[in-house]
Amino acid sequence: MNAAVTGVGTSFFGKQPDLHPNELVWRAVAEALAEADDPTIDAIYLGTVFGSPGVAQRALHHMGLTGIPIITVENACASGTTAFHEAAKMVELGRFENVLAVGVEKMTDNFAGAIHPESTDPEGRSGLALPSLYALAATRYQALYGLTDEDLARVSVKNHGHAVHNDRAQHRTPHTVDEVLASRMIADPLTLLQCCPIADGAAAAVLSAPKGSADEIVVRSSVLKSGGLWDYRSEHVWGFELVSATARAAYEAAGIGPTDVDVVECHDAFTIGEIVTTEALGLAHEGEGALLLRTGHTTVGGPQPVNPSGGLLSRGHPLGATGLAQVAEIVWQLRGDAGVRQVDDARIGLVETMGGGVAGIDGNACVVALLERT
Amino acid sequence: MNAAVTGVGTSFFGKQPDLHPNELVWRAVAEALAEADDPTIDAIYLGTVFGSPGVAQRALHHMGLTGIPIITVENACASGTTAFHEAAKMVELGRFENVLAVGVEKMTDNFAGAIHPESTDPEGRSGLALPSLYALAATRYQALYGLTDEDLARVSVKNHGHAVHNDRAQHRTPHTVDEVLASRMIADPLTLLQCCPIADGAAAAVLSAPKGSADEIVVRSSVLKSGGLWDYRSEHVWGFELVSATARAAYEAAGIGPTDVDVVECHDAFTIGEIVTTEALGLAHEGEGALLLRTGHTTVGGPQPVNPSGGLLSRGHPLGATGLAQVAEIVWQLRGDAGVRQVDDARIGLVETMGGGVAGIDGNACVVALLERT
Repeated sequence: MNAAVTGVGTSFFGKQPDLHPNELVWRAVAEALAEADDPTIDAIYLGTVFGSPGVAQRALHHMGLTGIPIITVENACASGTTAFHEAAKMVELGRFENVLAVGVEKMTDNFAGAIHPESTDPEGRSGLALPSLYALAATRYQALYGLTDEDLARVSVKNHGHAVHNDRAQHRTPHTVDEVLASRMIADPLTLLQCCPIADGAAAAVLSAPKGSADEIVVRSSVLKSGGLWDYRSEHVWGFELVSATARAAYEAAGIGPTDVDVVECHDAFTIGEIVTTEALGLAHEGEGALLLRTGHTTVGGPQPVNPSGGLLSRGHPLGATGLAQVAEIVWQLRGDAGVRQVDDARIGLVETMGGGVAGIDGNACVVALLERT
Repeated sequence: MNAAVTGVGTSFFGKQPDLHPNELVWRAVAEALAEADDPTIDAIYLGTVFGSPGVAQRALHHMGLTGIPIITVENACASGTTAFHEAAKMVELGRFENVLAVGVEKMTDNFAGAIHPESTDPEGRSGLALPSLYALAATRYQALYGLTDEDLARVSVKNHGHAVHNDRAQHRTPHTVDEVLASRMIADPLTLLQCCPIADGAAAAVLSAPKGSADEIVVRSSVLKSGGLWDYRSEHVWGFELVSATARAAYEAAGIGPTDVDVVECHDAFTIGEIVTTEALGLAHEGEGALLLRTGHTTVGGPQPVNPSGGLLSRGHPLGATGLAQVAEIVWQLRGDAGVRQVDDARIGLVETMGGGVAGIDGNACVVALLERT
């Protein structure tokens, strides 16, 4: 598609209760604008889940970003990638020339809207918050495919190992399989170190038309879908169908396949999530995602590193910011700017975020984007 | 622009604590889809301010609306019109064929994110909630232009008089100027009957390409802007510049002017809002908006009725739903389906919503759309 990423930026991710959301946004946006070929912004899409009304305008007018269309978008954990997707589409369609996509979440003091027992939502009333939902997916997957608790733990071990080299990540301590399994149980079989931490953070990207020059980072394709109907009778584990349908459409639009991908940032909010997602992205056959971990296929140094940033599990998961932090990591990797965690010769990168879920459907939303260094 | 409204629908507006947001959405969307030429929906934009994450997917999957792109948008009081604006733009740009715009807000039990003293936002910390902000605008306007308290009250009298004939409106009792002024003081000079009531509601519209046939309702133009910098040193009353800049752009894109407009639905969250807005829309000179009320110019039966539905003041203001309820009223008026409150020979209608504000800027966002019966 006819869109290039000309600048990215992020704040530090982690518990930062003393920072106002504005300050998180400023750090991310200032870095992205400083990199951009043309910092004249024509429109802004900002992703947030629990941000207060006007969180975008509140932060951005201090940077002189006023008057232009500003739209806040929400798609659960995929809010940041939804902002990115809309921004890229608007450039492609010629609606705007330079579009800023931003994501922000201040979770340490603004998590009021979260699923809770007094909610009108069935998930809240039943106690089926996200950790429980992923735990049910994990036990179903284990029953179907013989996945072990150790296999699940290996996702956490890999991603914590990657985050050691990411100085913007929340958790930078390496962990062993035994440590992961010995951490506090949250929702069986998911222990604490298999659940992404609550974080504050912001991330941003500037999208513009490609110039046709060498070493540009272009968006080969970007697809957004919402989940189809899903319940216990469905053939696949929860989330698989939505991610695989979105990925298939993204590969088709880009004219490439899973083996062409050099580096992936995907939605590992819980360890089982990365296993199901890497299968849905076509990196492994269904039921065989654990092999990617056992063989080192998805570790930095292996053929297709997944979550070299540390992923949501280690970088932290400020909901609306996550998708754009994934984009930033892929852009750094494709530029060769990722330092110690650099994936060799990375030319094509994939970003995937799944937001959700709501009882009865296979995820609220999923975005898969394919980026390439020309 | 190349977009037509082929169906609209709304729930009843008012305090409906026993209804789930889903039920509000179903009523609005079912009505809109039943009217639409083609109920095959390719994408959905849903506007809400305080709706919980997934409020769109939660409601819509029960109607079979899954799989397609669904994006929740927020722009304060302009969230519903932002959904409408994006939907119309996507049809115009050829990105999607049939797009559903929905707005919903359940305010009787889900107002948690509102401005409050514990907030990190300066408005919350200073007590400058929306009634206070509009009251400051009112006193400044009174000081500048000699507007009387009776002039302010006349907005409420007119709009309550209109709502008597709208069986979906929250408040249908007519009121006199004396009654409006005698109602409880909220933020001087704004009394209770000059402030829009908290409501639950949903509204929807289906956008598709025009067929070129007679009696279609087409979108002549739609413009979305965010506010520029504003403080006490600014030349105009708060909100004027944003609405007038947005309106000027909408008129220019449609190739018409204020005198071509037959009927208006505008943002009268507080009485002063309608006075400033009608001036910003070019229906009166700056400082002379009260004349429109004294002469009956904007009353149904007059030359340019404003808020024939009863407006936010009487229909109620479920934030995310309001913009699409305004669109629905204009569509009914242009079709000649508005019953006792029908504006004679209405051919061109204007919708305006302003969302905000955030300290330091002239409104978070404003949408002005011009609709026409071909």
